[in-house]
Amino acid sequence: MTDTSPPLGTVHGVGLGPGAADLMSVRADRLVRGARHLAFFRKKGRSGHARRLVEGMLHADVLEYPMDYPVTTEIAVTDPAYNERLSAFYADCTRHIATLAAAGEDVVVLCEGDPFFYGSFMHLHSRLKGQVPVAVVPGITGMSGAWTASDLPISWGDDVLTIATATMPEEELTRRIRDTDALVVMKIGRHMAKLRRAVATAGRTGEAWLVEHAAMPEQRVLRLKDAGDTAPYFAILLIHGQGRRP
Amino acid sequence: MTDTSPPLGTVHGVGLGPGAADLMSVRADRLVRGARHLAFFRKKGRSGHARRLVEGMLHADVLEYPMDYPVTTEIAVTDPAYNERLSAFYADCTRHIATLAAAGEDVVVLCEGDPFFYGSFMHLHSRLKGQVPVAVVPGITGMSGAWTASDLPISWGDDVLTIATATMPEEELTRRIRDTDALVVMKIGRHMAKLRRAVATAGRTGEAWLVEHAAMPEQRVLRLKDAGDTAPYFAILLIHGQGRRP
Repeated sequence: MTDTSPPLGTVHGVGLGPGAADLMSVRADRLVRGARHLAFFRKKGRSGHARRLVEGMLHADVLEYPMDYPVTTEIAVTDPAYNERLSAFYADCTRHIATLAAAGEDVVVLCEGDPFFYGSFMHLHSRLKGQVPVAVVPGITGMSGAWTASDLPISWGDDVLTIATATMPEEELTRRIRDTDALVVMKIGRHMAKLRRAVATAGRTGEAWLVEHAAMPEQRVLRLKDAGDTAPYFAILLIHGQGRRP
Repeated sequence: MTDTSPPLGTVHGVGLGPGAADLMSVRADRLVRGARHLAFFRKKGRSGHARRLVEGMLHADVLEYPMDYPVTTEIAVTDPAYNERLSAFYADCTRHIATLAAAGEDVVVLCEGDPFFYGSFMHLHSRLKGQVPVAVVPGITGMSGAWTASDLPISWGDDVLTIATATMPEEELTRRIRDTDALVVMKIGRHMAKLRRAVATAGRTGEAWLVEHAAMPEQRVLRLKDAGDTAPYFAILLIHGQGRRP
């Protein structure tokens, strides 16, 4: 008996880099331009940052599959309902994409930054793995975009670089900021006041920079002390390492 | 009186990514292909990894400026002579490149990974800054290449990711490995035995992976326990975060 089912398609999780179209990799550029099925996350009612980044690059016959987050900030992440709703959402997206791949179609999933570094695609990847072929194209991270924008290297010689999220408790955040040479803090948003206090308590306000919208037209680099009490979604705090250098 | 000197050229520090030519950014690709002056570091007597990566991409009229490291492992990094020789070397390279830029020539400096993340270009950047225009193109880091090769995300939710070098003292290395969710260790080389002990003392051998030559044809992903007592230059240790996920 011959298997007459078509060969499986591949789901490509494609890193788009920090936010300028020419900072995606040559491989990502080729996959995006050639895509017949294009999936991307976005906040409901928005066009989506990843989708905007590839505007003008897409094939005339592309079929788009926007994945609208059911919740973002309306429910606390600690509320079990948050997890349930997100989990059901990722399962739905996975079903749709897996069905396409099972029918032999390749699917490109757009990922801001690097897909495996705090990325939403990871929630699809873990569900798709083993069902259909999945390939990941790494990308330039948002933090690389941020330290490039700051025009200073992030880490030298034997520097320890800590990457933390501003979502953690203040005391723990303070300890992490104190106990590292170089620092990157992501997911700042509504945690700006707490982050500012943590940096101050750790005695490092003078070294701290905030980079907003790195690599995008509205890019802004400012000292933490000059930053406001809220930060945009694309904001990253940096403390540059000062390690060994000849 | 009119200034008749030509406009200054720009020195471009161009991140090449982890080691596959199509993982450099579209911007890097364009700069490398158009370069008339191309500078790159290499170990004396070797062709140089960065230079090999762009083989076949270069303009017919390109002028190459290989920068041969005067020392690599023959002198201990703690020996003052190491610093002196490297410092004189970087000053020489800077003079050559600054002279070209002052004469109006653009210069592309090849950088493995991301230029501002433990990169050699940083030693030129700090010396060139203020003399001539310098522009940096971020790249996909070697560690992104490594976790992509491992086919597992490095960090989820509120995970803390620590990036350390195996060159640090064993006790400190152990403490860092114990006190983090996710981990990347770079600069392993001859420190493999120490690193293995540190991971074991921290009780994390079961979670640790070694990725050699990520994104290159000879890429290898293995559990730390199955790794040998030395590691190639392009080896990265990973412990993946297990943070919050719906």
